[in-house]
Amino acid sequence: MASTGQEITIGGVAKGSGMIHPNMATMLSFATTDAAVDPGFLQMTVKAVADETYNMLTVDGDTSTNDTFLAFANGQAGNPVIDERSPDAESFRNALHQVCNALTRMLARDGEGASHLITVRVDGARDVADARKAAKTIAGSNLVKSAVYGADPNWGRLMMALGRSGAEAQEEHVDLFVNGVCIMEAGTPIPFHRDAVIALMSGEQVDFRVSLNLADGVATAFGCDLTEQYVIINSAYTT
Amino acid sequence: MASTGQEITIGGVAKGSGMIHPNMATMLSFATTDAAVDPGFLQMTVKAVADETYNMLTVDGDTSTNDTFLAFANGQAGNPVIDERSPDAESFRNALHQVCNALTRMLARDGEGASHLITVRVDGARDVADARKAAKTIAGSNLVKSAVYGADPNWGRLMMALGRSGAEAQEEHVDLFVNGVCIMEAGTPIPFHRDAVIALMSGEQVDFRVSLNLADGVATAFGCDLTEQYVIINSAYTT
Repeated sequence: MASTGQEITIGGVAKGSGMIHPNMATMLSFATTDAAVDPGFLQMTVKAVADETYNMLTVDGDTSTNDTFLAFANGQAGNPVIDERSPDAESFRNALHQVCNALTRMLARDGEGASHLITVRVDGARDVADARKAAKTIAGSNLVKSAVYGADPNWGRLMMALGRSGAEAQEEHVDLFVNGVCIMEAGTPIPFHRDAVIALMSGEQVDFRVSLNLADGVATAFGCDLTEQYVIINSAYTT
Repeated sequence: MASTGQEITIGGVAKGSGMIHPNMATMLSFATTDAAVDPGFLQMTVKAVADETYNMLTVDGDTSTNDTFLAFANGQAGNPVIDERSPDAESFRNALHQVCNALTRMLARDGEGASHLITVRVDGARDVADARKAAKTIAGSNLVKSAVYGADPNWGRLMMALGRSGAEAQEEHVDLFVNGVCIMEAGTPIPFHRDAVIALMSGEQVDFRVSLNLADGVATAFGCDLTEQYVIINSAYTT
């Protein structure tokens, strides 16, 4: 930790695949640490980190009946107990966030039938709630997910999902980027090297950025593409 | 019409296929009639009928940017103008409902890649809003839609979607039916002839009924199954 030089360790495991659209209710996730942590502070941190990681994940839009995220801290590191006012509160929060963020990306990439990890970063939103709503709606759209499977830089589908998300957006202010390449500026599709973008989208990860340019709300959602394999896995399933 | 014996005609056309989750905002629908109808009454009736038909339809959960439902009435039938207080108001409403209901079912059956029409009737809900929410969430669930494609009477997925719909439900009061066959009673899966239900689900239409047994809210949603063909159509799409 920055303030004490005391080294602590945080470990994590998680299990997902389908019926994944957590609302901390089949996703299982556990984090362990040898740090001494105040229980109230740990609970608050777990909630905040879950809202930015697991709760921003969607594989198929279907919320499971029993999502779980548990964190255990046993104090074996011998550090002074970390609570809300500790100089190390922020480093602890960041470290736990890093573990959960990595697991969330693995869960998305490991989604049933998935061939791509999708991240959707929305910035410039009216507030964080709006940014989350927009990012999660785009990441969850079957049409966006199918376009990613086909490596199709389909800005129309991104705008459609943004539009139905309920987040405040003004078309003439929206910029869109695919893996860092701008494909729409101020609501107008701009010329881009289509084959280059298709090649970028053919990698394992597709990152969308949607800049609303209204205020400073930011959020990132995590998802995966929709493939024939998803349908096969879930239609050939037998109880 | 019952009261005057005057015959009127209502015609309708509609176009859908994907990006279908209308919120009267690419679905196009037009109804025409030779009846003389008061414009205010017609508008009110169109809104009420749309809420029970087109707005209860989902092909892929993605709301289009330009859903349209227009009704035209030219009075050529020579009937007395129908308004809210006319004895024929109810027959007119029922006739328009019948046309839109038939078109909604055709739109669902014609969904991209679809092999089954799905209807979900929820009854016994706290109110109509709750019944609509539950019915539309179940009809829109990728896992329910994949199960229908696989002709799998998967009550777990129905209960999952009901649970995440936000509608009030008490597990111990829920009855589930597939094409008229009860598969769950008072929240408990009951023995049913699995092969017979699978055979029933292999037809063109799968009808789910979810009885919440709480109050008298009723609604029906319309959708279609999720198939490999949906993914192929929407990933091989090029702008």
